Parts: sequence; C-alpha cells; structure tokens
Amino acid sequence: MKAEREVTSLKSNRLPYGYHREVQAPFEETVDKARKALSAEGFGVLTEIDMKEKFREKLDVEFRKYVILGACNPSLAHNALEADFDIGLLLPCNVIVYENGNVTSVAAIDASRMLSIAENKELEETAATVNEKLKKAIDSV
Amino acid sequence: MKAEREVTSLKSNRLPYGYHREVQAPFEETVDKARKALSAEGFGVLTEIDMKEKFREKLDVEFRKYVILGACNPSLAHNALEADFDIGLLLPCNVIVYENGNVTSVAAIDASRMLSIAENKELEETAATVNEKLKKAIDSV
Repeated sequence: MKAEREVTSLKSNRLPYGYHREVQAPFEETVDKARKALSAEGFGVLTEIDMKEKFREKLDVEFRKYVILGACNPSLAHNALEADFDIGLLLPCNVIVYENGNVTSVAAIDASRMLSIAENKELEETAATVNEKLKKAIDSV
Repeated sequence: MKAEREVTSLKSNRLPYGYHREVQAPFEETVDKARKALSAEGFGVLTEIDMKEKFREKLDVEFRKYVILGACNPSLAHNALEADFDIGLLLPCNVIVYENGNVTSVAAIDASRMLSIAENKELEETAATVNEKLKKAIDSV
C-alpha cells in the first residue's frame, strides 16, 4: 500500500536529496521487500548497517529500528568509475528503512543530486539511469 | 611518505568533493593503515567493499585494486540523524584506497560538501568536525 508522506515534525519532510515513501507495513517486512525490489532492478545490496544495533553497542543509547542498505548496480558503478576514479567516495547508493511512528519509511538517495557534487557531466546519464531504477524499486516496496 | 597528487590523465585530479593523497606504499599496506588511522580518529569501519572482486564476480571484468571503506563516528552520526532522520542516505563517510600506477591513492569524502545537499544548517558543524577527523586520518596514512 502506498501512502503520501504525512506532515510530521521531522525536519526531513521536504527531502531535497532523496525519494521517500511511507508504507503501512512492519519494519522487517519492508527491509525484506526493499532488498528484493533492489535486486529486481539490478542492484546488489553490498552493505547493510543496523544503526539501532550500532548505537546500542557504541553509545549505549536506544534508537528506532533503522537500516542503511548500500545498493550497487555493477555495470552502472563501473561506468561511473570509468568517468571518475574517485567516485567510489559516493558509492554505493543508499536505501534506508526506518520506523516512523505508525508507518515505516523507505527512501533512496537521489543519485543525480549526490553525484552532482563531483561536477562531472559524464556522470549525469548514469546517475539518471540509477535514479529511474531506484524510484521503481522504492515504488514497488 | 606524503606526496602531492601528480598530474595524470585521471579526470579526478581536481577533486571538488573529497580529500585525496597519493602514498608511496603498496595497496594492502595502505588499506591497513587507513583502517587504523580511521580508528584512531574515532571512526568505526562499518562496511568494506572490494570493487575489484565485485567487478570480477558480477561483470567478469578486470579492475584495479580498489576498496571502499564506510567510516562512521557513532556520536557524530547520531548528531546528524537527530538533525535529519533521512541523513542515513548519506552515511557512512567513505574512504577509498586504490592502485594508481606506481602509487596508491587514498581519499576521504568531503563531508561538508556531501551533507550540503541536505540543505540543513544544523548539519554544518557536525560535518566540519567529521572533515577535520577524516583529514587527520588521511594525512596519517
């Protein structure tokens, strides 16, 4: 079920650097769906960070359930690296899933916005392709 | 040994989004030093991606030795997330190490430049602190 993001007190309601949806599904189910949706769009999930666990372990503070998935389409990543060898500083593309009150938030980075800081026009087409695929993946969660 | 970056054919010589050094040391030794330097500055290395291995496995192409380390200072990451819950889209901070002809390149993302796309002034101080620590880490490799 798709839902427009509700206006809450979170400062990130206007998200200038990503594509954000809220879904009426539990956190774990959403993470699982996000993984499958990314795979269907050709992204491998190369990294996964459990922020709740990290903050408990390192800071002894409680945090909401929050994971960062590092998604990488090998062919598009290769294109980007051929255009700029340092672009690994901006790879992989992140998808986040977190508890957000009664809903679960899922969002993907805006690859065009993120890669724009590299100031390299050769990256634009690759970034646009990544964004199309990420949006499809997020929309299918 | 520290060396200014040489002018080569790489398009990334001018790096508007990171701090780059070249070192006269083998790749593996540099990766090891980078891990230790990040730890000394309070960063955990939460993720590590071997791009050479990924490209061989997924695309059957040869690529130079290239790793992406995902560095995270838990306390600073917590600050950033309190300012913007979606900022996980831009975490962790990447450090890359790659073979570059006769030298090894090591670079860190410019956290201020990267987080600027979130358009949130509350992130600026945290990003500046991250950059100071990342620069110290890279300088000590």
